[in-house]
Amino acid sequence: MPKLMTAKDRETEEDHLSNNINSTGQVGATQSEPNLTLASSAVVRERGRSWGGLLSGIISLNILILGCALVSASAFNNSIIGSAELQIFLIILILLTTIWMLYYAIYMSVKDQAVTYKDGHAGPIWLRGGLVLFGLLSLIMDIFKIASYVGYLHCDSAVKVAFPVIQAVFILVQTYFLWIHAKDCAQLQRNITRCGLMLTLGTNLVIWMTLVTEESLHQTTIPEYPNKTKIYDDKCKCSHSSCSMFKDAYYYLYPFNIEYSLFASAMAYVMWKNVGRKADEHHHHSVKFRVKDVFLGPIAGILLVIAGLATFIVYEVEVLKDDDDDDRLDRALMMHFVMNVVIVTLMSVSTMVGCVIHRLDQREYVSEKNPTRNLDVGLLIGASMGQFIISYFSIVATAAAGGKGYLNGLNLAWGVLTVIQLGLQNFFIIEGLHREPFHEEHPITVFTNPYVLEASRELSSLEGSDMDTKPSPVLTTHTLSHRPKLTWKRRVLKEVCAFLLLANIILWIMPAFGARPQFDHDVEIKFYKFSVWAAVVNIGLPFGIFYRMHSVASLFEVFVTS
Amino acid sequence: MPKLMTAKDRETEEDHLSNNINSTGQVGATQSEPNLTLASSAVVRERGRSWGGLLSGIISLNILILGCALVSASAFNNSIIGSAELQIFLIILILLTTIWMLYYAIYMSVKDQAVTYKDGHAGPIWLRGGLVLFGLLSLIMDIFKIASYVGYLHCDSAVKVAFPVIQAVFILVQTYFLWIHAKDCAQLQRNITRCGLMLTLGTNLVIWMTLVTEESLHQTTIPEYPNKTKIYDDKCKCSHSSCSMFKDAYYYLYPFNIEYSLFASAMAYVMWKNVGRKADEHHHHSVKFRVKDVFLGPIAGILLVIAGLATFIVYEVEVLKDDDDDDRLDRALMMHFVMNVVIVTLMSVSTMVGCVIHRLDQREYVSEKNPTRNLDVGLLIGASMGQFIISYFSIVATAAAGGKGYLNGLNLAWGVLTVIQLGLQNFFIIEGLHREPFHEEHPITVFTNPYVLEASRELSSLEGSDMDTKPSPVLTTHTLSHRPKLTWKRRVLKEVCAFLLLANIILWIMPAFGARPQFDHDVEIKFYKFSVWAAVVNIGLPFGIFYRMHSVASLFEVFVTS
Repeated sequence: MPKLMTAKDRETEEDHLSNNINSTGQVGATQSEPNLTLASSAVVRERGRSWGGLLSGIISLNILILGCALVSASAFNNSIIGSAELQIFLIILILLTTIWMLYYAIYMSVKDQAVTYKDGHAGPIWLRGGLVLFGLLSLIMDIFKIASYVGYLHCDSAVKVAFPVIQAVFILVQTYFLWIHAKDCAQLQRNITRCGLMLTLGTNLVIWMTLVTEESLHQTTIPEYPNKTKIYDDKCKCSHSSCSMFKDAYYYLYPFNIEYSLFASAMAYVMWKNVGRKADEHHHHSVKFRVKDVFLGPIAGILLVIAGLATFIVYEVEVLKDDDDDDRLDRALMMHFVMNVVIVTLMSVSTMVGCVIHRLDQREYVSEKNPTRNLDVGLLIGASMGQFIISYFSIVATAAAGGKGYLNGLNLAWGVLTVIQLGLQNFFIIEGLHREPFHEEHPITVFTNPYVLEASRELSSLEGSDMDTKPSPVLTTHTLSHRPKLTWKRRVLKEVCAFLLLANIILWIMPAFGARPQFDHDVEIKFYKFSVWAAVVNIGLPFGIFYRMHSVASLFEVFVTS
Repeated sequence: MPKLMTAKDRETEEDHLSNNINSTGQVGATQSEPNLTLASSAVVRERGRSWGGLLSGIISLNILILGCALVSASAFNNSIIGSAELQIFLIILILLTTIWMLYYAIYMSVKDQAVTYKDGHAGPIWLRGGLVLFGLLSLIMDIFKIASYVGYLHCDSAVKVAFPVIQAVFILVQTYFLWIHAKDCAQLQRNITRCGLMLTLGTNLVIWMTLVTEESLHQTTIPEYPNKTKIYDDKCKCSHSSCSMFKDAYYYLYPFNIEYSLFASAMAYVMWKNVGRKADEHHHHSVKFRVKDVFLGPIAGILLVIAGLATFIVYEVEVLKDDDDDDRLDRALMMHFVMNVVIVTLMSVSTMVGCVIHRLDQREYVSEKNPTRNLDVGLLIGASMGQFIISYFSIVATAAAGGKGYLNGLNLAWGVLTVIQLGLQNFFIIEGLHREPFHEEHPITVFTNPYVLEASRELSSLEGSDMDTKPSPVLTTHTLSHRPKLTWKRRVLKEVCAFLLLANIILWIMPAFGARPQFDHDVEIKFYKFSVWAAVVNIGLPFGIFYRMHSVASLFEVFVTS
């Protein structure tokens, strides 16, 4: 009967089919009826899927490119029409998205059986937690914006007040929506859901583009970043006294709103990918997180975090002082650079050790095809591009400057080491995620007759992992023969993971909470013009911050499975 | 025994496994030995694949971003150091790629059994033909460049002469390499091959970035495009008299070199995707290309091509005249706009008819999972982005100008209609490619008992299609009941395909051979600054040209299968 299951059906029925074949081996005649109906219904469903997926993709593409054109127009045109048009476009998008999200939430709560499948891997706690944190800060930004623009109401467009109000409502609805529904694998109304999710993705990416552009333009008009903003519209005066305070405040919160848009986009994309997927909510392997296994890694990591935090605070205090003492600024920068070079060097060395262990390790690669993991890896590599771009631009600028002066030398070293570290860490995490979790109490049986496999499967399923572990006879014996060496290997891997995890946390904290050595040190600003460098940093850094958070979560997973 | 075949193995053994299950139904005990060895060797191979694919990806990412940084530096820095550094970087990349390609070609010719599998779908004739055509024109460009820069040798860097010489050799080697090896599914030395192909991809994309930037900068310094270049380096005078002639000539050939890089990138990417794939070179369905089936579509299409060619030639002649008669230029532009609006409108209408027929049509979706087709669809959608971007930027600019004047109105209409046409055409082509080819002599049998399917499979395999057609019983009866209506549906589909194919050819010819209404009409130039608009057009248009060629090939395939 497997003949009826075409390859296309398998694509969606992946789990179902593989279970089917793997658990029963010979698929007998008794199963013919269910498979028959399944195959035909799958074809009907697939027909729907094809145009729904395509249409939603085309919708999102159009929103994105139109948004891109409008953002470029408002940025390069310098006329007020451009900016107001862009905001009206954004308001329409936001309203449509909000209406759809409310509709979806109500529909799902009314229909009890609307979501029968949930993807346990989607919307992990760090992503949802980050969403709420950045959402809250974005809400505060919107309140400051409203307070500021109310003062200009008598002489400026009302759209400028309407926009933050609508955006605040949108952030509330979207955060609620993604918190509740991030794990859904929608089965009903798939095409509408696909289009809705692509609308959400498009809206968030257009908002992201707008924010990045505004932030860059704002920095370009006030080159003495991060000093106070002193440029206002000449003709239009604010009607209340606290305008400038609010304006200063909301520009500090811009990076959080940028980060919020990225988080929401990532989650909407994962949900879109999961529409129609029939994944069972497997609760992974029961997480055996025992800190007593490791010692050196966490200790070194915590020391690094403390040292990093100390230098970061000193650096920020020095930079934010208003006087123009260049020597003091240089000393603060040098300290920050040295700290970063030390962190990145230690990380590179330990990652290299981890990679070597991975190569020595004979653990089997995960055999199960896992769309969520592929997506995760894609997001990880995609997000790392942001930091890659900043580092390479920095390397070219400092190398062209000849590395003169200790600050340039340190900056160059930081750039080169960051590139090496990113490459190694991506490699290490991806290798780690694709390994079969280690089984502590492996049954000491050597399979020579493949027909005993059924029994072995039952045995291995008792080991606390409910993933489909299908040890092939050859590999099982292999593992057994290497038994004595595995203990130290596992231990070293765990130490490396713990250390890298903590190091990524400190590398996340620094840029997320305001460190911008890219603007305090002027080599790159002089080499590229300010506007180009501001664009590179403002596009790259939010992805870099996302990458560090993502790495922490992935390293935790590698820690648990190794 | 299917139990031994893990899902990961299935990923690569896709075809093998599906044949295995589908052709034999019950996989018996007699097959246990081959499968066993296959599974274990697959694991070993997969281990290699994992790090090879990853490493090659990281290499190409690093080349790309470093290239991006160097190109930005040379563009925004305005110092000569940036440009020379970039050329040295390019020379190193080109030499490495050339050495690898020669090594691969020699290795493959020495080892007879190195390539046992070929992907019949990869490297189609239009792609290879386009590569050779654009390669030839690029070679001519390089010769002109050498001739021009030799005149500056006494006062400018020798790198400027060395670069075109090395590039010419590279183009010769690469065109030969891709012509011969485009269909290879490399099985030996996979990791080295993956890295080599990613190096090729990276090199071509960096060259593409460099060319686009140079072209945009050149147009920005000489705003009266396409008039003659009059700006030379003030201090350095050319030593022979024909310098300016060569310089004029080679700038006209830039777009072809840009197109060449895109073609080579696409082919290298497809080859990279095919490394390690075990696809049999199935010669598709025997192509039943009978023109007598269709009549209206080709006639209308040919009329459109002739009309388009006529207006295009008149337009080019008018635009290239040197006098500044604005009225004449406006008339020529209006004619060009009207022609394009007519073409795009007719295309939209006929595509809509085609989409409606597709929805009425009950043909089964192709059940086979086909990586090459997915890649093809990805390239199609990706390439369409270029035209989308230009159209949306144009729409925003002309809409902001209020559509005043007939030229603005026509430009706006052209933009909107192009967006509609692109969306519809993408939808139509993708739907068409995913349909099962039509079977003319379908056996008139109604299956009620699924066990007769084995027999039906043998029947359907006699129908000239060697793809795995697995008609499910439900759908077969369905097709039969709709029998009488199918004839006119098929005919209309073929008419639509033929018409669209010819219309895409004329839309390819116009920009490929020099029509640049984007620069002759100044609304967009005034709205965005010139540099932004030049960047948009220079990045978008080569993708648009690639898209039209790709569409022609895909429409031909849809024509044959429908």
